[in-house]
Amino acid sequence: MAIRLPEGTAIIGQSGGPTAVINQSLVGVIEGLKGYAPVKRILGMRHGVDGLIKAKAPVDLTALTSEQLDKLARTPSAALGSSRAKPNEADCVKIYEQCKALDVRYFFYIGGNDSSDTCRIVYEMGQKQGYDLRCVHVPKTVDNDLMGNDHTPGFGSAARYVAMAFMADDRDNASLPGIKINVVMGRNAGFLTAASALARQHHDEHSGPHLIYLPEVAFDVDRFVHDVSECLSKHGRCQIAVSEGIKDKDGVEIGAKLISGEKDQHGNAQLSGSGALGDMLSNLLKERLKGPTGKPPRVRADTLGYMQRCWPDPSSVDAAEARAVGVKAAQEAMTGLTDGSIAIIRTSNHPYKVEKRVIRLADVAAKTRHMPVEFLNGHNNVSKAFVEYARPLVGELPVMFKLPM
Amino acid sequence: MAIRLPEGTAIIGQSGGPTAVINQSLVGVIEGLKGYAPVKRILGMRHGVDGLIKAKAPVDLTALTSEQLDKLARTPSAALGSSRAKPNEADCVKIYEQCKALDVRYFFYIGGNDSSDTCRIVYEMGQKQGYDLRCVHVPKTVDNDLMGNDHTPGFGSAARYVAMAFMADDRDNASLPGIKINVVMGRNAGFLTAASALARQHHDEHSGPHLIYLPEVAFDVDRFVHDVSECLSKHGRCQIAVSEGIKDKDGVEIGAKLISGEKDQHGNAQLSGSGALGDMLSNLLKERLKGPTGKPPRVRADTLGYMQRCWPDPSSVDAAEARAVGVKAAQEAMTGLTDGSIAIIRTSNHPYKVEKRVIRLADVAAKTRHMPVEFLNGHNNVSKAFVEYARPLVGELPVMFKLPM
Repeated sequence: MAIRLPEGTAIIGQSGGPTAVINQSLVGVIEGLKGYAPVKRILGMRHGVDGLIKAKAPVDLTALTSEQLDKLARTPSAALGSSRAKPNEADCVKIYEQCKALDVRYFFYIGGNDSSDTCRIVYEMGQKQGYDLRCVHVPKTVDNDLMGNDHTPGFGSAARYVAMAFMADDRDNASLPGIKINVVMGRNAGFLTAASALARQHHDEHSGPHLIYLPEVAFDVDRFVHDVSECLSKHGRCQIAVSEGIKDKDGVEIGAKLISGEKDQHGNAQLSGSGALGDMLSNLLKERLKGPTGKPPRVRADTLGYMQRCWPDPSSVDAAEARAVGVKAAQEAMTGLTDGSIAIIRTSNHPYKVEKRVIRLADVAAKTRHMPVEFLNGHNNVSKAFVEYARPLVGELPVMFKLPM
Repeated sequence: MAIRLPEGTAIIGQSGGPTAVINQSLVGVIEGLKGYAPVKRILGMRHGVDGLIKAKAPVDLTALTSEQLDKLARTPSAALGSSRAKPNEADCVKIYEQCKALDVRYFFYIGGNDSSDTCRIVYEMGQKQGYDLRCVHVPKTVDNDLMGNDHTPGFGSAARYVAMAFMADDRDNASLPGIKINVVMGRNAGFLTAASALARQHHDEHSGPHLIYLPEVAFDVDRFVHDVSECLSKHGRCQIAVSEGIKDKDGVEIGAKLISGEKDQHGNAQLSGSGALGDMLSNLLKERLKGPTGKPPRVRADTLGYMQRCWPDPSSVDAAEARAVGVKAAQEAMTGLTDGSIAIIRTSNHPYKVEKRVIRLADVAAKTRHMPVEFLNGHNNVSKAFVEYARPLVGELPVMFKLPM
């Protein structure tokens, strides 16, 4: 059966917090479209749909050489520029009108759940008005919180950074013992904080992280102090992973209370780009764990910050998958898909195997996936099931040698 | 002429802030001693001279296999444990007595300027009492602030981390424009903060860091706000490198005023392990650069933290040099050196070539090297001479691709 495809422009945009491999997906879409006659040119939105809303001239990506594409793919963060905007109804009209003006027939949007919702709205506008505009969402988020996906491109590289940071920092903490807090990204989903568990060394029962606090489990200050105190007794030191999104029993974000009131268009308060949460927990422990002499313990806090999402040494698995979902999105569009999102589904863990499937835009849009209960272990740890889940996603990790002492 | 060497134990210790390659130096000393008949066994101090002062049994390193040594060398941070202690006179007596009790004839101490001073004191005690104890200092510090050295092992890897962090973070900042502050380690010497300049891309005049603030140049708040404002006008965004050790015109550390009063035995206030300086500067800019509507600019601050000194992907050049200074220290001791420090001297920059030479312990001890004037460029930048100096030390760096837009 011959497939009838509309002829015209393909446009690609990048949205939300960048990742180390979001340009792999961009390159994947471009590569996947190459050689298809209906695609007359390939454009890039400047700063996602912001560029369309403001009618900024898109970037022409049609003539990029394979050498340029390779360099682009290896460069972290959104090369087209990104956007935090959640377009309202009027914005979506502008996006749609701009697409028509540019003769866009294929709309690819690389981003999280908000981006899939934008795809859905724009697609439905075309449907209503009888303009054949096909919209495919390409998943991306370091938070790993998209519904319908086993995991999302961007997560593996961020998880790799977190695992490497914790394993090296644990050696640092062992060499100059004390309490070390590392605050990890992830507002609502604890996957990235949980990935710190990949730093633990099989041959060293004292290796950290010793305590892991996720946004999925209510954070209790007294219990936290007690946990750290017990850990010090057991290991003589304590390395702690704390999600930036930890909440008290009433669901109030502990970090947001500390950082001066900036909010984005989604109503989310700023959590990243500040050391306030780590410093507050650090001061709390210095005060509450004073010794009999009144001397506070050695406490240090690092907020791992933006390096988690842009560190230019991604997981090889993640880089390949990010490229592959882009290619898949293009290929699906070129074989008749009118709207949908590409999802990664794991078909086997030993050996690790995945499939890329098309799922409905509405199944991804505006929903957040949390750590499932089977990935938790008590209130301050993750399960073996989580470690088995996350291990194949981060690529090869270094091994920390410990002297027999 | 035959060299007469005393027979007995060699002992090795690690001191001060760990680095990504301090174990390379440890392994270098062990390898350099192998096969020399006067060395009856090789021991490791636990937590530097602390272990000797407290008469803790050292770790026997004599029987480590070459496979174990390779793994050890690739593991960041001090595998023997480190120490921040500055031994006083009574401590030095204990160290010396403990060395005699262990039949130590070769004392190797890997560390910064305080460590070389410890070597000097212990060596002089042996001299006075007619006990042949030879003391060799092996240089190490991410701060790159040792006198008599072109650069120090540990610096190249930390500088590599800083350069990679800034180049990736600059892409992140370009994709979601705003002001980004990254606080870099280095209390008194700005070398590591200056290394952020290695992130700049030749093909992109807009690439960051746009402003670099070093401890060697007095920090003025009003001038800082003005600099950032000008940068925003020019580039539409601003990426800033700030040393944790920036001082006001009276020499008062700006960070130390913000972080609750902990001091180490050297009288140094805590600077690392807190986000306070970055957050203060961030809040300052939000307040002072409000637009006409009263809306603050987007400002984020990361404190690069302990990852700078332990990230487990060191500069290849630095790793090799750290190993080589350890080997050199051992070889010098085995050919008659009684006391001294190993220094790296650059003999050529194109191509990059270094020599390892012996210098006097007193020439390294208790002094701090600062950024020379020719490495500075105005009050907020570094010179081309600095970039040429630092570039060979960090190994190969990734290149950030920029779309023609």
